[in-house]
Amino acid sequence: MSVSTKLKNIVPLLDRVLVQRIKPEQKTSAGIYIPEKAQEAPNQGNVIAVGKGLLDKDGKHIPNQVSVGDKIILPPYGGIPVKVSHEEYLLFRDSEILAKVVE
Amino acid sequence: MSVSTKLKNIVPLLDRVLVQRIKPEQKTSAGIYIPEKAQEAPNQGNVIAVGKGLLDKDGKHIPNQVSVGDKIILPPYGGIPVKVSHEEYLLFRDSEILAKVVE
Amino acid sequence: MSVSTKLKNIVPLLDRVLVQRIKPEQKTSAGIYIPEKAQEAPNQGNVIAVGKGLLDKDGKHIPNQVSVGDKIILPPYGGIPVKVSHEEYLLFRDSEILAKVVE
Amino acid sequence: MSVSTKLKNIVPLLDRVLVQRIKPEQKTSAGIYIPEKAQEAPNQGNVIAVGKGLLDKDGKHIPNQVSVGDKIILPPYGGIPVKVSHEEYLLFRDSEILAKVVE
Amino acid sequence: MSVSTKLKNIVPLLDRVLVQRIKPEQKTSAGIYIPEKAQEAPNQGNVIAVGKGLLDKDGKHIPNQVSVGDKIILPPYGGIPVKVSHEEYLLFRDSEILAKVVE
Amino acid sequence: MSVSTKLKNIVPLLDRVLVQRIKPEQKTSAGIYIPEKAQEAPNQGNVIAVGKGLLDKDGKHIPNQVSVGDKIILPPYGGIPVKVSHEEYLLFRDSEILAKVVE
Amino acid sequence: MSVSTKLKNIVPLLDRVLVQRIKPEQKTSAGIYIPEKAQEAPNQGNVIAVGKGLLDKDGKHIPNQVSVGDKIILPPYGGIPVKVSHEEYLLFRDSEILAKVVE
Repeated sequence: MSVSTKLKNIVPLLDRVLVQRIKPEQKTSAGIYIPEKAQEAPNQGNVIAVGKGLLDKDGKHIPNQVSVGDKIILPPYGGIPVKVSHEEYLLFRDSEILAKVVE
Repeated sequence: MSVSTKLKNIVPLLDRVLVQRIKPEQKTSAGIYIPEKAQEAPNQGNVIAVGKGLLDKDGKHIPNQVSVGDKIILPPYGGIPVKVSHEEYLLFRDSEILAKVVE
Repeated sequence: MSVSTKLKNIVPLLDRVLVQRIKPEQKTSAGIYIPEKAQEAPNQGNVIAVGKGLLDKDGKHIPNQVSVGDKIILPPYGGIPVKVSHEEYLLFRDSEILAKVVE
Repeated sequence: MSVSTKLKNIVPLLDRVLVQRIKPEQKTSAGIYIPEKAQEAPNQGNVIAVGKGLLDKDGKHIPNQVSVGDKIILPPYGGIPVKVSHEEYLLFRDSEILAKVVE
Repeated sequence: MSVSTKLKNIVPLLDRVLVQRIKPEQKTSAGIYIPEKAQEAPNQGNVIAVGKGLLDKDGKHIPNQVSVGDKIILPPYGGIPVKVSHEEYLLFRDSEILAKVVE
Repeated sequence: MSVSTKLKNIVPLLDRVLVQRIKPEQKTSAGIYIPEKAQEAPNQGNVIAVGKGLLDKDGKHIPNQVSVGDKIILPPYGGIPVKVSHEEYLLFRDSEILAKVVE
Repeated sequence: MSVSTKLKNIVPLLDRVLVQRIKPEQKTSAGIYIPEKAQEAPNQGNVIAVGKGLLDKDGKHIPNQVSVGDKIILPPYGGIPVKVSHEEYLLFRDSEILAKVVE
């Protein structure tokens, strides 16, 4: 991505969702370092931007299941890497996202 | 999964179902240890959480076949592993689940 | 399957059908032993339980072709093995079942 | 197939068709033996039993193209072998059958 | 095909079309022998018989694009060989046929 | 193709389009020979004949996107070769054609 | 492409989109050379021309998601190369394009 492109400029198309992976927690809430092996696989992420959704047979958009700001559970594979200002983001299809984590 | 995520926070999307496998019984009802080889494969599970179901052509959710609390028979393969608070759960598609075990 | 699950507790989902294979006849009607090689492949079975059927586009169940108690002809392959009280059963899709044997 | 099952008991399901292959003619009409190599591949058969046909979107059966007693041309491959009273029959899908031979 | 089956007895089913390949011309119109290598690949044929066509969603036949007597251009591959009275014919699907050659 | 078949006799079926590739220009407009390596891949062509188009669900033809005389951009692969009077033509599906070149 | 074809003559068909990749920035905004390895993969592009869109079931065009002049994010793979006046362009399907970059 050219250095000038900012995150907010990126508008995913159709059912695509721009996600940033949440880095696994290095320490427990009590501050104890979690050995890498025990760190839970980083399969959670935050939704940064969403497309308008796929088109139904009448050409209307079917809204995506997730929205900006949602905390989500990602599949172990998939996602197209997109670099923006040297940060790595991922583009998933809405239907690939497994679940939401609602606080 | 970050340590802070609790099971109840997890909302599967569309036709996904969060399941926990029932561990095979180690002892018979009379208390006799069942050798591992004779233990029945653990292909039963409990439904922890369900999505709203797939969308039909008009964008309405088609309710899933299983509901929270159901005891079910799982296919021998498949299911995406998801760790929550160091416990292993599995995400299946509603249509992958073979049968219910109704008491 | 946990020892406590009984056959009648099992409710197949959607278009699945729980079947028990009919063991090939060891002896002719005149009581003569049939050598294993000459025994007809055991591709018949009895229907133990059926699901409500697949969903049509309006979310209504399309009844399965076979019902409980039917004697059926099974395809040479397929079927998911399910053990109940140490007996082996098979789960087929309704559309995989080849024919009924009506007395 | 258990010895007791008779041909007339077999009811194919949906679009399946029970067929018996016509054995190739060993002799010409003038009684001359046809060498095996010159015998035409036995890709003709007789229809023994037919299912009610596939279901359309409203759950109604779409009648099959062939009926009991039809003489048909079979594809070179396919067909599920089914033994009844030690005779070999084949189950085809209606749409696999190439043509009818009308006298 | 049994020797007794005549061409006119064969009724293709659904969208199938019975075709006979046109043998490549050995000589130019001026009578000069065309070396095999220069002979144009025999991908033309004559339509001998046609089925009623595929079924639409209401179970009505959609007429095929070609009719008996049409001269057609065949794809380089495909077609199921069918021998009738020692002559070789081919069964194609209507949609496999590339073009008509209209005089 | 038999020597007698003329181009105008060929009527593509359904969504097929008969195309002749435009040979790459050997010389620049200033008359300078273009070395083979620098010659642009010949992926342009002229539309010679078009079918009536695919059938929609009601059996009506959906007109093709290109028409006779159009100059088009061809995909790098595909197309069924058809020889007519020793000239090579190609049959593409309408949906395989990438773009038109409108003067 | 023949030297005479100009960019404006090219009309993509259906859901195809003609794109030119944006070359990665060699220098930072402060004028410092970015080593090749650190240059962001050139997965951005400009939309040069768009087709009328795919056809819906009634034969009407469904407008594409992107329009001429849009800045877009391209998938890491795919796209059919098309040379016009010695410049390289790419033809993508509208649904392959990941996102827009709106200024």
